[in-house]
Amino acid sequence: MSLTELKEQVFRANLDLVKHGLVTFTWGNVSGIDRETGLWAIKPSGVPYDTMKAEDMVVLNLKGEVVEGDYRPSSDTPTHLALYQAFEDIGGIVHTHSNTATSWAQAGRSIPALGTTHADYFNGPIPCARALTDEEIEGEYEWNTGKVIIETLEGIPPLSVPGILVKEHAPFAWGKDADNAVHNAVVIEEVASMALKTLTINPQVESVNPTLLKKHYERKHGKNAYYGQKK
Amino acid sequence: MSLTELKEQVFRANLDLVKHGLVTFTWGNVSGIDRETGLWAIKPSGVPYDTMKAEDMVVLNLKGEVVEGDYRPSSDTPTHLALYQAFEDIGGIVHTHSNTATSWAQAGRSIPALGTTHADYFNGPIPCARALTDEEIEGEYEWNTGKVIIETLEGIPPLSVPGILVKEHAPFAWGKDADNAVHNAVVIEEVASMALKTLTINPQVESVNPTLLKKHYERKHGKNAYYGQKK
Amino acid sequence: MSLTELKEQVFRANLDLVKHGLVTFTWGNVSGIDRETGLWAIKPSGVPYDTMKAEDMVVLNLKGEVVEGDYRPSSDTPTHLALYQAFEDIGGIVHTHSNTATSWAQAGRSIPALGTTHADYFNGPIPCARALTDEEIEGEYEWNTGKVIIETLEGIPPLSVPGILVKEHAPFAWGKDADNAVHNAVVIEEVASMALKTLTINPQVESVNPTLLKKHYERKHGKNAYYGQKK
Amino acid sequence: MSLTELKEQVFRANLDLVKHGLVTFTWGNVSGIDRETGLWAIKPSGVPYDTMKAEDMVVLNLKGEVVEGDYRPSSDTPTHLALYQAFEDIGGIVHTHSNTATSWAQAGRSIPALGTTHADYFNGPIPCARALTDEEIEGEYEWNTGKVIIETLEGIPPLSVPGILVKEHAPFAWGKDADNAVHNAVVIEEVASMALKTLTINPQVESVNPTLLKKHYERKHGKNAYYGQKK
Repeated sequence: MSLTELKEQVFRANLDLVKHGLVTFTWGNVSGIDRETGLWAIKPSGVPYDTMKAEDMVVLNLKGEVVEGDYRPSSDTPTHLALYQAFEDIGGIVHTHSNTATSWAQAGRSIPALGTTHADYFNGPIPCARALTDEEIEGEYEWNTGKVIIETLEGIPPLSVPGILVKEHAPFAWGKDADNAVHNAVVIEEVASMALKTLTINPQVESVNPTLLKKHYERKHGKNAYYGQKK
Repeated sequence: MSLTELKEQVFRANLDLVKHGLVTFTWGNVSGIDRETGLWAIKPSGVPYDTMKAEDMVVLNLKGEVVEGDYRPSSDTPTHLALYQAFEDIGGIVHTHSNTATSWAQAGRSIPALGTTHADYFNGPIPCARALTDEEIEGEYEWNTGKVIIETLEGIPPLSVPGILVKEHAPFAWGKDADNAVHNAVVIEEVASMALKTLTINPQVESVNPTLLKKHYERKHGKNAYYGQKK
Repeated sequence: MSLTELKEQVFRANLDLVKHGLVTFTWGNVSGIDRETGLWAIKPSGVPYDTMKAEDMVVLNLKGEVVEGDYRPSSDTPTHLALYQAFEDIGGIVHTHSNTATSWAQAGRSIPALGTTHADYFNGPIPCARALTDEEIEGEYEWNTGKVIIETLEGIPPLSVPGILVKEHAPFAWGKDADNAVHNAVVIEEVASMALKTLTINPQVESVNPTLLKKHYERKHGKNAYYGQKK
Repeated sequence: MSLTELKEQVFRANLDLVKHGLVTFTWGNVSGIDRETGLWAIKPSGVPYDTMKAEDMVVLNLKGEVVEGDYRPSSDTPTHLALYQAFEDIGGIVHTHSNTATSWAQAGRSIPALGTTHADYFNGPIPCARALTDEEIEGEYEWNTGKVIIETLEGIPPLSVPGILVKEHAPFAWGKDADNAVHNAVVIEEVASMALKTLTINPQVESVNPTLLKKHYERKHGKNAYYGQKK
């Protein structure tokens, strides 16, 4: 993939965040990586979506050095970097402050798997990471945010739980590429909204039957997946 | 009705799901049947709504065999088949993960009839089916989903209660044709939303007066119906 | 005002219901009266908004006889008639099943005046009428709906409380003409939504300070009103 | 800045309120001031947004005298005047009845800082002012509203907490200019919505860690701010 293609892909994925109603003002960013070259592109910091162009995307390498671009990269760049270094299967990352998922993050609660909508994408709860310590906040804050996400995912294949809530902050999602990460960010917001309503209707509700969780997750993502068209 | 007309009708009904805000991505499907020929058409699995064409609809017979179409039918096809076999009056079926109705399904609660909006379409609560057993999930899952729906409706004329919640999953709706099934799916989401708010305002609320339920249902669907224009 | 003008006015007011998001399908109707002639126009029953034309409005007199029109009038016509007969100051009536106001009606609770948004239009709570008795439902149902509304408003100038909730059913609003009635229907939905959220944030909340209620109501509607431009 | 430019800026900021979904009908107003001349412009009272023109803005001086304009200024003009006199750093003011923020105001509760979305703009809770006394309401009501806002902000730099809830009424926001005030009004509504959902998910939730509050506020507004592009 050429750098131009990568930037175009990341640019379009950023606009899709807006189309799906996940961002207010500039509160969100998408990045995507070309694993062959180790180069990745991310939205510039604080640039409005309606005037942004594909060539405004900032390109970095896996050491976090800016390789190309006229703007400062997103202030969340070190979080993206930490995730690309730790999760070798992922090809795209999204950060939003989408309304309901952010509310779960503020409440400090993982989103339980309550039905098949959730199970179609997440093979278990969407975890809420622990709060950062004062030292972690006052130090390399954005990098430490990535570290806490990685710590929370320990032992879980990242693509089987493609997103997380950062406590007192907001969701991060990822996927096999930038588009897929945006897709998962949409799922997180939708599932967060349904889970909030479900708890309001029935405060005693617990997790979905694990057999049903597995069935739906594998129907879409297992080796005998039969959802969608044969590739 | 020609096959082309049937596919066109089902295609348009699928797009109407999007227009009414009932689907995210590809999380929904509509089918319609021509009772004279016993042929029915359904949305292909996992195909995006914005590129889908009428000729992409998959046609099956009442044994569940694909008769025409280049794509795999929706993964929920066996559920539709079971309902067409059991409910001889219905001509269309819709499945969605519409936000609030899905939340009621996840909460495992039937939607009580709380007012005339509900009574105009459903002659009683919108039932929540029992959860599938592990055996039912691990076996012919989608077919068994249909079986549990049929079991729940036992003794109730399907067109008098044209929809249901599948526990831990989402709603199914049906009607005299594909369009009417979509109409009922919209009603379920709207009624689910009002019922959630009603319970929040007054947690003690119970069912609407049965006399009022009957009045409104029959005003629209009884033999002396007087809502709308004479046909 | 000519009949053509009256029908055009009522037609446009019906479309405004859709524009303001107050109706799903055909669940709403607006009427307007010319007090000089005693003739009034109302939406035809069950006709879709997107194909309806101004000339489809049905014209009646104050005895409830259809004077002009090819369609059946709205099934709620007797309710409108009862209100026009009883409330001589009003010039327009709206009925909707708008989502949150209908939830309050289903909950059987009046909407308390909780702030200035409410006070700008309603000089007190938006009352919830008592439920109709079985006899009232089985008799002249729509006419009796009007009677119960009138009974609830006893002693209150209708234009000072320009709307009501019919228990287990939905809101009715009125105003000095059809446009103003639509305006008040929008206010009811907005105020219903805020009141629901207010109670969620603070379940102990009670009514707004009566001095503030009076101040805001009179700032817009009193004889020394100073909101808006001089007429 | 010329008067024409000021009126154009204020006019556009008023339209932005509509674009961001913060106003129903005419329930909102924006003003902006040119600190060099001490002249400020505000929306005329009760004029609909869709027919309003830039030249309709009313210009006043810092004594509250109308200097230019054919219309009456907004009925909330004395509140704006009090704030411009007391808060010398601010350049724009917005008043709305945005749905969720107004619900917090009606509930009489400050919006606690629950996460980084809030911390990015407000260096502490969004305070709810005390209710006005009967005397304050019956006297110079709109001026007294400003006085109570100023009293509540005592000791807090206005641009570090750029908005407030007026109890039983609705929010006011401000900023370095009219545009920035609109931006902060959008933030208040968004943060109000998240806080309501957060409390529903976790009624025990308290304030965000003060270290995180400070980090996010200063990341955007501190002297070493690194969010966005270098100016």
